[in-house]
Amino acid sequence: MRYDFGSDNTAGMAPEALAGIQAANAGFARAYGADDVTARAADLIRQRLDADAEVRFVFSGTAANAIALSMLTFPFEAVLAHHAAHVCTDETGAPGFFGQGVGLIGLPGFSGKIDLKAMTAILDEPEVGHRQPPAALSVTQATEYGAVYTVDELRGLIDPVKARGYGVHMDGARLANAAAGGFDLTQIARLGVDVLVFGGAKAGAPCSEAIVLFDKSLARRLDNRLKQAGQMASKGRFQAAPFLGLLESGAWEAGGAHANLMARRLAEGIVTNSRFVLAHPVEANAVFVRMPAAAHRRLNEAGWACYRFDDGSVRFVCSWATTEAAVDELIAAVRTIG
Amino acid sequence: MRYDFGSDNTAGMAPEALAGIQAANAGFARAYGADDVTARAADLIRQRLDADAEVRFVFSGTAANAIALSMLTFPFEAVLAHHAAHVCTDETGAPGFFGQGVGLIGLPGFSGKIDLKAMTAILDEPEVGHRQPPAALSVTQATEYGAVYTVDELRGLIDPVKARGYGVHMDGARLANAAAGGFDLTQIARLGVDVLVFGGAKAGAPCSEAIVLFDKSLARRLDNRLKQAGQMASKGRFQAAPFLGLLESGAWEAGGAHANLMARRLAEGIVTNSRFVLAHPVEANAVFVRMPAAAHRRLNEAGWACYRFDDGSVRFVCSWATTEAAVDELIAAVRTIG
Amino acid sequence: MRYDFGSDNTAGMAPEALAGIQAANAGFARAYGADDVTARAADLIRQRLDADAEVRFVFSGTAANAIALSMLTFPFEAVLAHHAAHVCTDETGAPGFFGQGVGLIGLPGFSGKIDLKAMTAILDEPEVGHRQPPAALSVTQATEYGAVYTVDELRGLIDPVKARGYGVHMDGARLANAAAGGFDLTQIARLGVDVLVFGGAKAGAPCSEAIVLFDKSLARRLDNRLKQAGQMASKGRFQAAPFLGLLESGAWEAGGAHANLMARRLAEGIVTNSRFVLAHPVEANAVFVRMPAAAHRRLNEAGWACYRFDDGSVRFVCSWATTEAAVDELIAAVRTIG
Amino acid sequence: MRYDFGSDNTAGMAPEALAGIQAANAGFARAYGADDVTARAADLIRQRLDADAEVRFVFSGTAANAIALSMLTFPFEAVLAHHAAHVCTDETGAPGFFGQGVGLIGLPGFSGKIDLKAMTAILDEPEVGHRQPPAALSVTQATEYGAVYTVDELRGLIDPVKARGYGVHMDGARLANAAAGGFDLTQIARLGVDVLVFGGAKAGAPCSEAIVLFDKSLARRLDNRLKQAGQMASKGRFQAAPFLGLLESGAWEAGGAHANLMARRLAEGIVTNSRFVLAHPVEANAVFVRMPAAAHRRLNEAGWACYRFDDGSVRFVCSWATTEAAVDELIAAVRTIG
Repeated sequence: MRYDFGSDNTAGMAPEALAGIQAANAGFARAYGADDVTARAADLIRQRLDADAEVRFVFSGTAANAIALSMLTFPFEAVLAHHAAHVCTDETGAPGFFGQGVGLIGLPGFSGKIDLKAMTAILDEPEVGHRQPPAALSVTQATEYGAVYTVDELRGLIDPVKARGYGVHMDGARLANAAAGGFDLTQIARLGVDVLVFGGAKAGAPCSEAIVLFDKSLARRLDNRLKQAGQMASKGRFQAAPFLGLLESGAWEAGGAHANLMARRLAEGIVTNSRFVLAHPVEANAVFVRMPAAAHRRLNEAGWACYRFDDGSVRFVCSWATTEAAVDELIAAVRTIG
Repeated sequence: MRYDFGSDNTAGMAPEALAGIQAANAGFARAYGADDVTARAADLIRQRLDADAEVRFVFSGTAANAIALSMLTFPFEAVLAHHAAHVCTDETGAPGFFGQGVGLIGLPGFSGKIDLKAMTAILDEPEVGHRQPPAALSVTQATEYGAVYTVDELRGLIDPVKARGYGVHMDGARLANAAAGGFDLTQIARLGVDVLVFGGAKAGAPCSEAIVLFDKSLARRLDNRLKQAGQMASKGRFQAAPFLGLLESGAWEAGGAHANLMARRLAEGIVTNSRFVLAHPVEANAVFVRMPAAAHRRLNEAGWACYRFDDGSVRFVCSWATTEAAVDELIAAVRTIG
Repeated sequence: MRYDFGSDNTAGMAPEALAGIQAANAGFARAYGADDVTARAADLIRQRLDADAEVRFVFSGTAANAIALSMLTFPFEAVLAHHAAHVCTDETGAPGFFGQGVGLIGLPGFSGKIDLKAMTAILDEPEVGHRQPPAALSVTQATEYGAVYTVDELRGLIDPVKARGYGVHMDGARLANAAAGGFDLTQIARLGVDVLVFGGAKAGAPCSEAIVLFDKSLARRLDNRLKQAGQMASKGRFQAAPFLGLLESGAWEAGGAHANLMARRLAEGIVTNSRFVLAHPVEANAVFVRMPAAAHRRLNEAGWACYRFDDGSVRFVCSWATTEAAVDELIAAVRTIG
Repeated sequence: MRYDFGSDNTAGMAPEALAGIQAANAGFARAYGADDVTARAADLIRQRLDADAEVRFVFSGTAANAIALSMLTFPFEAVLAHHAAHVCTDETGAPGFFGQGVGLIGLPGFSGKIDLKAMTAILDEPEVGHRQPPAALSVTQATEYGAVYTVDELRGLIDPVKARGYGVHMDGARLANAAAGGFDLTQIARLGVDVLVFGGAKAGAPCSEAIVLFDKSLARRLDNRLKQAGQMASKGRFQAAPFLGLLESGAWEAGGAHANLMARRLAEGIVTNSRFVLAHPVEANAVFVRMPAAAHRRLNEAGWACYRFDDGSVRFVCSWATTEAAVDELIAAVRTIG
């Protein structure tokens, strides 16, 4: 694969992440996260968020999200999430597995942002014993459709949820792209988010995500929880090292900004050079294009991996590793079919 | 930490594992294990085992063991294991978490090897509805006490289990040490093991273990199972790459052999230079020493991390990274207190 | 409460069920279902179904359904069911709790019957690792909307499911009403249903439902499964006794027939005496009426419990205990408001 | 079976329990526990305990215990219980099933009473991430070996547990026998028990147990929890009715007292008329006799069901239904073999 727009998991590690791993590989270090690399990486995340928090570095975003939700709900309760959110559509039911059957209530909304009226309607439903009532809200920043919530939009969703004493989870798999899209990370704690998944893999790390607990009470026996769930790294330094490399160097932000820039370049090129229109605003690293099945097929046949989403549009996603040349080549390919 | 005998998780990555990661980081690759690095690493594992098998690379040995056991049992059944096995004592109940309450039946036996008579007695108990009957056997090779099962010993345990139609899991976290201790890896499939966890982290990889399914029927929808359980790597190549580096270079075997050699050197040095005696045969990479609490404390105070185990002895463990100089320094330290 | 059309759980026990309990209360009997009452009741169920099967008497239809589905699926798989089925809407996520996160795929269809095209479309979707693929079909007979599947309709749904090697569960909470509606119980096994929940409570028993396993291989260690799940009766005879009373006397069928008759009388009375129309065919013991919110409210205010369903219609449900006088009184009440 | 000493689940319903069911069967009643019978039975239980509490009537003691423990623990924690407690030995791992893998720490102690020193030693162990630390204590009153804790003994166990902020569960399957043995039920809440299972089946009810929550905060969304777990009775009045009959009439206490009296008569008869000795004090409704295997076999062959327990003694258990004549006949049988 020379390059790819099908997924942001196909790029490798950013050089700074690899450098972090190499630097962490000196001599012996305490196991299970009691090492300096882990401590320094956690400090940098707290600094970025301008908040005190418990931080742990785990392997899988799917597990990180599911564990976070299991902290906020009982099995006989449910999570409010956008129906297109990763936890609803792409995690093979992990929230129910880690949460022993916890429910998901899929909500509508443009471009992956939860519609406030729809959420409030669910919150206002009378509770009955034979259904799973909501106990937590899960928001995805940036959304699955490449949009970025404003702080006010998030406040509008979070306040009524907190007012009922429910918890809030933020899936930040693409948090670097949201930050590059103008989202102020220091507002996350202030908004009342209880658990954040601070994304690593899509930002240039190998499989490493940070679970950030602003609500310290949730952190009780957290290491036992993670160990039992298979998300405690014995050689913990290697989970934290890519974050340390990316955050110390600023590559975490720079990579997100580059990915967004490439997405905008791609979007403008497609709109300018083809008859295809965009399905969603391009605020992060993904471009969604309305495209007939035949055109989509021809692109795939020409070797351009890209997938049709539930809203009917075709997604092209950029990463820290996407080059201008690749974008321009794709634009040319789109023009020839469109 | 200059060096450490407290754990084999405190060493870093072997150079060959890191080289594998660096080599894997070229350009784009398909996600979720559909890449060449993963395919080649799986081939090398099948070659080592001289058997056809489904191979997946996961993050955590705890999860790998627990998922393996959940494939072989229902929640209302139990697993036969040595009472000192990692699944019983060091995984925070992960088998019950992934197995929805599956039971563990702890069996006695010298040096971590399951006693055949004790196991048979359990197998022969009449079944009753109010207990969890055995449905699988879990063996650890090398054992928690640094012993290595012979093929005949394993056959003696496995045959009566398979005769009842039950499954067999092998925890190979220290399989490289067992191999260096004389265990023939090509016998694992022939013995009737259904699921093997082929150890990476303790053999010089970062957190990466391979689940090996000899019974292909267990592999149905395996990717769904691993994804839901948070053990499917999006950037799969980086889970497989350390194995590729270690196995292509032979460092997986060499590191295990070196660790065992250092353990024997340490054991001989302690026996020769102190009044302390060994608690278990030294057949792999760990040395267990009978040592009074006061002596143990003095060693710890002198900066030598080492832990007392349930059998009352103190464990010293070596790895691919342990140096002769460190061993000799520890021997000297033991002599001064003993 | 003099009488009630809000639920078929508000009626008491049929006299024959109570008589069965009284008769079973003589002297001592073996515990955990090893008694004669249980054996005789199981025989009568096998006789009604004209099939060999393992039969167990459990407490809760919710648990019976969830346990049945857990026998047919893994946590990383999903169950195909009508979106209005009890397992989807009224069991507080029990399938996910007993099934450790197993998914539910809600399908459309008129009057609670699964639409074949919609089901086939799901079956034909390519499998991906990040979603829960279907592994079982759950059908409800009679449906939540008071319809009764024909044998041919069921065959049409079951055959393509079995052709893929998937399992089939039938929720028979209102099986007595389906039988009275013309459904031939002896076809259930022949259609390929693997697990049937043979309804007791709605047919005049207290809380007792029978789990019927036509696929004996699913019955391995069934008592252990039920005991662990809290569905094994210590004084088992009292779970079976109401079935024995209802089935020996024929009251199980007679009660279902009476409930259906009352439902038809109510439906005809409403259609003839008011401007309201029916929302669904009346083939079992429930009547669904299209009724404005104001009219519904006035009925409730007049003391007639009845609930609006997801399809917007208002349900009136009859049971073995519903009297003609009560039906006529309700018809009069509906006339006054409509 | 004319009578039986093998189990206290082989007796039928006490007449007062049956009368309660018959009385509850008049007309229609609200479903899911919103009926008068349920309200009155709950009041009588609160009255007996002289405490405010949430009360629910469920089907199974195994489920009641497991659900109670799941309220007090996370899956990565453990429950302290006597190694011979029903939750440890006779519930097929239900605590792990309902508690998603929650651990059980089996403690020693004479006659089923937890040894304080052993419990304190566990409480004082340093916590580590790779084990399940204790989070709750489970006590059984009366114990599995027919002993009755004094209030002081319970206080001694409960205080250090509560001091650490852990929860307390009391398995009262034989609470009526404990009460008859001198245990003051009004002390349960004062001792700090959080969840009590108030036994019905062994006291003359069919399968019905009451979950009593003194800690109201645990009762949040309790109906959702019970419904999901298959322990919510649709026709709730029939779960409560046997309790209402037993408690209104005083038969709950009288039956327990009678069972204890019969046990003492049996114990004295055996000691006086045979060479066999008692293994445990007879403080409730069970008699444990030291008896060689041959003698035990001869008794079984003579038609006297009785089981050997883990401590090697043979148990004879009495109930509300045991007659003096039966006791004397058994004494004669024991004399002939001993």
